[in-house]
Amino acid sequence: MSPQPTNDVLSLSLSAKAKRTVEQPISFLMAAAIGRKDLISFAAGLVDEPSLPVDEVRAITQRLFADPARARSVLQYDTTHGLKPLRELLLQHLEHLEGHSAEAMGLTPADMLITTGSQQALYLIGDVLLDPGDIVIAEAPSYFVYTGTLTSFGAQVLTVPMDNDGMDVDAVERLLTRLEKEGKLPRVKLIYCMSYYQNPTGLSLSTPRRKKLLDLAKRFSKSHRILILEDAAYRELRYEGDSLPSIKSFDPANQYTILTQTFSKPFAPGIKTGYTVLPADLVDPILQQKGNHDFGSANLCQNIAYETLKDGSYHKHVQVLNAAYKHKRDIMLAALTKYMPKAPGLSWVHPQGGIYVWLTLPAHIDTSREAAMFQDSVKHGVIYVPGAYAYSPDEQGNTPKNSLRLCFGIVPTEQIEPGIERLAGVIKQLIQSPACGCGAPAGGKCAR
Amino acid sequence: MSPQPTNDVLSLSLSAKAKRTVEQPISFLMAAAIGRKDLISFAAGLVDEPSLPVDEVRAITQRLFADPARARSVLQYDTTHGLKPLRELLLQHLEHLEGHSAEAMGLTPADMLITTGSQQALYLIGDVLLDPGDIVIAEAPSYFVYTGTLTSFGAQVLTVPMDNDGMDVDAVERLLTRLEKEGKLPRVKLIYCMSYYQNPTGLSLSTPRRKKLLDLAKRFSKSHRILILEDAAYRELRYEGDSLPSIKSFDPANQYTILTQTFSKPFAPGIKTGYTVLPADLVDPILQQKGNHDFGSANLCQNIAYETLKDGSYHKHVQVLNAAYKHKRDIMLAALTKYMPKAPGLSWVHPQGGIYVWLTLPAHIDTSREAAMFQDSVKHGVIYVPGAYAYSPDEQGNTPKNSLRLCFGIVPTEQIEPGIERLAGVIKQLIQSPACGCGAPAGGKCAR
Repeated sequence: MSPQPTNDVLSLSLSAKAKRTVEQPISFLMAAAIGRKDLISFAAGLVDEPSLPVDEVRAITQRLFADPARARSVLQYDTTHGLKPLRELLLQHLEHLEGHSAEAMGLTPADMLITTGSQQALYLIGDVLLDPGDIVIAEAPSYFVYTGTLTSFGAQVLTVPMDNDGMDVDAVERLLTRLEKEGKLPRVKLIYCMSYYQNPTGLSLSTPRRKKLLDLAKRFSKSHRILILEDAAYRELRYEGDSLPSIKSFDPANQYTILTQTFSKPFAPGIKTGYTVLPADLVDPILQQKGNHDFGSANLCQNIAYETLKDGSYHKHVQVLNAAYKHKRDIMLAALTKYMPKAPGLSWVHPQGGIYVWLTLPAHIDTSREAAMFQDSVKHGVIYVPGAYAYSPDEQGNTPKNSLRLCFGIVPTEQIEPGIERLAGVIKQLIQSPACGCGAPAGGKCAR
Repeated sequence: MSPQPTNDVLSLSLSAKAKRTVEQPISFLMAAAIGRKDLISFAAGLVDEPSLPVDEVRAITQRLFADPARARSVLQYDTTHGLKPLRELLLQHLEHLEGHSAEAMGLTPADMLITTGSQQALYLIGDVLLDPGDIVIAEAPSYFVYTGTLTSFGAQVLTVPMDNDGMDVDAVERLLTRLEKEGKLPRVKLIYCMSYYQNPTGLSLSTPRRKKLLDLAKRFSKSHRILILEDAAYRELRYEGDSLPSIKSFDPANQYTILTQTFSKPFAPGIKTGYTVLPADLVDPILQQKGNHDFGSANLCQNIAYETLKDGSYHKHVQVLNAAYKHKRDIMLAALTKYMPKAPGLSWVHPQGGIYVWLTLPAHIDTSREAAMFQDSVKHGVIYVPGAYAYSPDEQGNTPKNSLRLCFGIVPTEQIEPGIERLAGVIKQLIQSPACGCGAPAGGKCAR
């Protein structure tokens, strides 16, 4: 055809929310890995494959489909709220985890919601609570997918530091006090805290801090309730240390805490089933949004989750899985000790659970995607998540750049030590280079 | 404990969107049905149970879990975009439905998106396109779950009438012309059209109108592209009449049409898997939102969808299912002919596919939840969806109230005739009553 004036290039007119939404860092990390069979990836937060519950789900699906009446109910729609027998069992499971009765925690199965992974619950909570300009308090560093989601709602994410006991709750108190003085308390909607083996640091919130955080939420709830969003995705992946009670468990009237958990990490992401414990008056607003999203997550997957809890295979699987992850963690920690240079400012967290090791480098080493360290790592066949993604910019727009997240989830066990050795090689080179981080050879002059 | 001042009653501070979101009518309909074993429900839009593909899914899950490597990949995460081999097969499936090559339609597997039912796609499309005050043009009546979703985004839903050829596209043209004159064209983002066996009317858009609707979208795209959202959830449930090409198939550059389809209606809602064909430049914005929602729908369900397309069991099942639905439809239509009074203004649509029959009553009969007709129907053991839910209020805030939706999806075959008989009894009584609709006995005086 001959060229002619057309409106083929007319653009789309996207919503303000779409314009605020940025690409997730994971996309570029996946792109970096494509076509590199030799690459050892500590980047992807995927789960260990050999330990996935193949036998368990095979037995469950055989059972579900052996009984045609049951099979038909599994293939039909269920409710937006989620399969009732599953919500009942999950409440029992929670009682078991907490060592408290549902009654003592002010909970009934109606407070439980089933979602498409716990990520959907995090999204829905943001959706029903946040208007542009609202404030969420979070840890620095924090789970970057969710802080990205919060930003897409137009929320302002204000962060406080962490130490070995998790989120610095005294800093939360100071922040809330300042916000109150500035008249901004009405905009504070949520305190987001990953209380167990946090992504990305692997750190957990200590029990005294759990209580104090809840007290702060209550104390600063003046015109409305400030809610704590307790993301416990990694809770059951515990390899050492005590089993901690949730923040939720200290909130007996079920008013100030939302607790999200999932089957993705302790069982199988492929069934994409998460569950949330909601304050009773938040249930209807969330259900109304979820009705608009999908009017209920996949019923087949919910039935598999129900069966694995019911027949006890879930609990056995978690034990097997934790042994597998503990082994991988130990290999990673041993390799770090063996290969990382002894340098001031270089340290890592010893996580008691979860699937991440957080590594901090000397201040002058920039781990960002664009910097020499990341490029050199790719060149040497190893990738990680640059720590900067996990930080929300401070008031000057700065984020720390000298940390990184290592995931021992999906990486094959035998690749962990060589991967750490490669990474340590890159780091050694940079430490010995001029402090500018230009990547010039050890002992040489700055190449810039 | 002694009573003391507490802040126990402090309210939540919900987002503007949460405040705009209303409870879906289906909730009250379900509540009306609870504990009434004798109730015949033509209300719920659930699917036929005896025909659900139990044998097919049993065979598929056995196959998936017989191979441990395959099983592990099924239980792992996949991508936000959706399982690539499934997207490839779905494009082939679309080629088969349209009778056109993917190339001729300007499509590649990258334009295909897998979602948690097609409802999630509808939601995501609203989310990336609509700001409060934006305009969506829809049919009157239209699919009430989605018009509720649109309203929750703050969009204004402007409707045009339907006739036996579906959406009145001349009315769309007049509406767009008027909006242009009023300077409102920049706010028009979407034309929402359920082009096959529409929910609630069962009507389809004729082929000439499909072409004209697309021409209108192009012609009125001045500052930005106005997109057609073609919801084809019921497309494959065809019992008579020709197989119609999609609106999408007339858009060879893949620029103006979004086409959503699903496995829920033609296969099984329990796997909650839908798919959407997107204009290429809409893919990234949608993926970014979906990343925030769930970073990918349940992989197990996607693998089942893949297998049923691959092994041909999907296509065989659709034939079996259509025979079952045709039978139920025929029983419903015959019962309507047999039992409904011959009265001016009383008529129903003869649907060529889908799972709904739309019944229009004399103008003075109010089918609403609060009116005598609905209450009497419940009393006589039959329920339906009041038609008013499917209408967006006109500029005076009015909605037609004399129609209703009958679903022959989940209702057992043997209940269809008795259910229609009950309903006809209620309607006869009302027709013979005073025209006020007060429900006073036939020939009596108005009871108000």
